[in-house]
Amino acid sequence: MHFRELEEKLVAFRDARGWMKYHTPKNLAISAAVEMGELLEHFQWESDEEILESIKDPAKKEAIADEIADVIIYLTLLAHELGIDLDRAVEEKIEKNGKKYPLRT
Amino acid sequence: MHFRELEEKLVAFRDARGWMKYHTPKNLAISAAVEMGELLEHFQWESDEEILESIKDPAKKEAIADEIADVIIYLTLLAHELGIDLDRAVEEKIEKNGKKYPLRT
Amino acid sequence: MHFRELEEKLVAFRDARGWMKYHTPKNLAISAAVEMGELLEHFQWESDEEILESIKDPAKKEAIADEIADVIIYLTLLAHELGIDLDRAVEEKIEKNGKKYPLRT
Amino acid sequence: MHFRELEEKLVAFRDARGWMKYHTPKNLAISAAVEMGELLEHFQWESDEEILESIKDPAKKEAIADEIADVIIYLTLLAHELGIDLDRAVEEKIEKNGKKYPLRT
Repeated sequence: MHFRELEEKLVAFRDARGWMKYHTPKNLAISAAVEMGELLEHFQWESDEEILESIKDPAKKEAIADEIADVIIYLTLLAHELGIDLDRAVEEKIEKNGKKYPLRT
Repeated sequence: MHFRELEEKLVAFRDARGWMKYHTPKNLAISAAVEMGELLEHFQWESDEEILESIKDPAKKEAIADEIADVIIYLTLLAHELGIDLDRAVEEKIEKNGKKYPLRT
Repeated sequence: MHFRELEEKLVAFRDARGWMKYHTPKNLAISAAVEMGELLEHFQWESDEEILESIKDPAKKEAIADEIADVIIYLTLLAHELGIDLDRAVEEKIEKNGKKYPLRT
Repeated sequence: MHFRELEEKLVAFRDARGWMKYHTPKNLAISAAVEMGELLEHFQWESDEEILESIKDPAKKEAIADEIADVIIYLTLLAHELGIDLDRAVEEKIEKNGKKYPLRT
């Protein structure tokens, strides 16, 4: 799914539920950060080795996947409110990173 | 761009620079959270009205777009390390949200 | 309570429960960020006016107080691991802020 | 320094600079999270062993101490706006933790 499609889907979901009034830039930025905190919780006490072991449990994997998805969902809604084209933004950021960290040849 | 393509692009970028050894689950989760903090900085002191006004400045808009992109980039790299299919994860999370918050008809 | 006393109390609490091995710098930094996310959750959807109204409910106030305390507790444990004297660090940071933002007279 | 004294000092600092109008609950919560992100940056790419090594550099140690102090400063200002007594909140949270995780004797 492109961000454009994801954005349309999420905005339709939200509007059907009358949540638009809550979706201010600050609220959505805070929401993305809240979900980031819930994602971090999965990395709190385990070592990297233990994480790579415990992710073999499908329930654990799904729980982490859900949290990553939640952050992405709120970021997409935030981009929508700010008129940011995320497909383009991600593309351009990778290009900038390529200039910032050029390959040594 | 689908997450699958984004993932491939980012992994190739990283491998070409020899950064793989730094990309452990914990490091990538922390990195995503660091970028989230930089994103939040844009919403720190302005009201929602002021944010929607200041976003009219293309430089400001690009700066915020870059930060959102940075969070997405690290989340995609984290999903890669954990073997999570982000296209599917986001799709499934939206379905779950639909069941959690059904439309009252 | 000074940070020095708080630190001693928290370290004794932890050692009595055999948690020392989990208290690495990265784990404690992540833990502080997890609690910050839980704190932010209280500010996610309400306006500032609504927050100041809902805080009149003692249960709500206690819930927020608990989250702030949790962040402080993990920061104190992190400072302990790094050999940072928090009483001095806070004092010195305020002095630096005073130099950075001098009073216009 | 007790939180009570810290609070008084920070509020006086702020009022002398006319910053009161910016210090709404949401803005202060976001600010604390921004500083948390800056703190996390120090734990992004190094292992725990490398962190404990690099902290021997006084400049590095001071930089991390400053970030922890910044988070504490914003949390204290947030508690002030919400009428939360942080000395008591931290004390009570430790008591609650003691009940939640009793010592096995």
